[in-house]
Amino acid sequence: MAINLGERSYAVHFRADGLKELSERIDVAARARRVAIITDENVAPLHLMPLLSGLNARGLSVTSCQIRPGEAEKHLGTVSALYDGLLGWGMQRGTLIVALGGGVVGDIAGFVAGTLLRGIAWVGIPTTVLSQVDSSVGGKVGVNHASGKNLIGLFHQPTFVWVDTAYLRTLPTREARAGFAEVVKHAILGDEPLLPMLTRPAPDLLSAEPEVLLEILKRAVRVKADIVARDEHESGPRMALNLGHTLAHALEAETGYSAMNHGEAVALGLSFVIEWAASRELPRTTADAVLAALKGLGFDIDWRAWVNRLNLEHLLDRIDADKKNVQGEVHWIVPRGAGDMEIVKLTKAACRQMLAGMLPKRTGE
Amino acid sequence: MAINLGERSYAVHFRADGLKELSERIDVAARARRVAIITDENVAPLHLMPLLSGLNARGLSVTSCQIRPGEAEKHLGTVSALYDGLLGWGMQRGTLIVALGGGVVGDIAGFVAGTLLRGIAWVGIPTTVLSQVDSSVGGKVGVNHASGKNLIGLFHQPTFVWVDTAYLRTLPTREARAGFAEVVKHAILGDEPLLPMLTRPAPDLLSAEPEVLLEILKRAVRVKADIVARDEHESGPRMALNLGHTLAHALEAETGYSAMNHGEAVALGLSFVIEWAASRELPRTTADAVLAALKGLGFDIDWRAWVNRLNLEHLLDRIDADKKNVQGEVHWIVPRGAGDMEIVKLTKAACRQMLAGMLPKRTGE
Repeated sequence: MAINLGERSYAVHFRADGLKELSERIDVAARARRVAIITDENVAPLHLMPLLSGLNARGLSVTSCQIRPGEAEKHLGTVSALYDGLLGWGMQRGTLIVALGGGVVGDIAGFVAGTLLRGIAWVGIPTTVLSQVDSSVGGKVGVNHASGKNLIGLFHQPTFVWVDTAYLRTLPTREARAGFAEVVKHAILGDEPLLPMLTRPAPDLLSAEPEVLLEILKRAVRVKADIVARDEHESGPRMALNLGHTLAHALEAETGYSAMNHGEAVALGLSFVIEWAASRELPRTTADAVLAALKGLGFDIDWRAWVNRLNLEHLLDRIDADKKNVQGEVHWIVPRGAGDMEIVKLTKAACRQMLAGMLPKRTGE
Repeated sequence: MAINLGERSYAVHFRADGLKELSERIDVAARARRVAIITDENVAPLHLMPLLSGLNARGLSVTSCQIRPGEAEKHLGTVSALYDGLLGWGMQRGTLIVALGGGVVGDIAGFVAGTLLRGIAWVGIPTTVLSQVDSSVGGKVGVNHASGKNLIGLFHQPTFVWVDTAYLRTLPTREARAGFAEVVKHAILGDEPLLPMLTRPAPDLLSAEPEVLLEILKRAVRVKADIVARDEHESGPRMALNLGHTLAHALEAETGYSAMNHGEAVALGLSFVIEWAASRELPRTTADAVLAALKGLGFDIDWRAWVNRLNLEHLLDRIDADKKNVQGEVHWIVPRGAGDMEIVKLTKAACRQMLAGMLPKRTGE
């Protein structure tokens, strides 16, 4: 599948067990026949050796760096350690960086690639559902800052992205489910008929026939690819991808990136915004289909419980500090229907009022 | 003067005392009416207040960050401190970053702009000859790493660059002279008739009529702009701009970025490479014109003395680690004539041999 971005276009390849072809494609992309694999300590024991062997067998010079796993490691310190390791190894302009892992690995490795030697080519091998359907498309790379998620970052498109269902077999259930929250988001943004395909537990989806899983992944990626192609640098349509993420980012940050993973936060953010949207223009049937998919997949969608558990003012500070805050207004993406997003601009005070208005109902549900 | 880079094109404005117009242009560029000025502790006492007053008078919300001056501060730690300061202040996507200072300030501020919130607009106000003719054109931004200069960096074009001769009046002689080394380089690369205009002490040039100085600056910038327009991301013709810099970077690094400034290192690098070039195809008259200009400006051009003072193997390691090293070969830019550059590719061993062959002559000169 082509991601159309003019001179920065690239392909996402969908395969079931395509390791041999992957080595060949990396070989072609590695101009200087040198490859630096960045992965993490969870992924390495499962998937590093086969890839290393394949590349070594082709005569490539390969090094690998393992970072500690988890969103909490996605900061400038990890980037700095990777600069040291890669430059110490003898990184050159023609060296190819390969990101083998989930979204955190891809975001960090892509950022390192984008900022080393004024930009190094890189290949993404996302190993989770989340990173396969979301962060693998669009070239957004970066790390978190103490004051918010992804505040340090840039756009750096990969040479290609490799989506292989083989990697999903080793995913823990919780990780696997997380990614399907983004699939649900993509369905709302541009493929409503995908929703009913998602109304069953995530582990069932993963053990379905490879063709079914590949179709879900492809359709989810297609929605994002179409949006990104129209708006590489997020000035217009790409804003829609932030659906559910304004609250999700605030929840993740306010719980210290430990109580929930990104997909779980997105599921909460989506259930909140869909409820809000249904009180405005979104047809009840669409809202119900979304909530049914999220519930069916096994997500906690009780966003009220989380908001009530946290300090509302701190949460509002996080929302207000979001990078989609433009001239003092937070830009919320609110669906009017599947594929039809409205941008609702609210000041911090208006956000407080809106949330306060939606919070009661604790006993009503 | 336009720097033609397609959708990333921008203008360099040349003025003598144009502070009022500058405030107006920054006002227009600052979408969110917020401006963050990054400067250093040398430049701030001289030039920050007038700019701040001008912007405040226009009702803009302005903050300023001062870094410690000097190449030694150009590292990731300074970048990290600026992230903290700017995000703490409430940096938003529409905030404009203004770099007020020499090349170090521009490189750091541009890197911060390129990596904050996935890319912030920035304006360059170079306050030295060097940064006016060199780093203000081309969008190369970044910081040094322990293993070499500018190894961490990217391309991030500014919104516009402001070259004002008023800033040059406060330059110490040594700083002022440094920039003319790049002017000499640009003359070799594309404006040989500029060389005779440079054969007098730098302070004289700076106290010449503003029109003479502006003409020299414009012609030097024009040469670089033409090269960069043909090759934004340094895959081909832009390599020529590295003339004199392979040895210069190694000398700077090996002397700990303290014994010489960048311009002085470039003057040494140029005298070395011009001598090498004259032993190949460069006409003696052109070589003599270059050396006369460098000497006339007041530069130390005894590169042999520096190389002899240092450890040759360490220097070779630095040269070999240069980012223009491709597949084990260092790419040297060697003039065949003004405006006609050859790329000479040498392995580390061949570099050692070439330098060793040129080094004797200590007593012969």
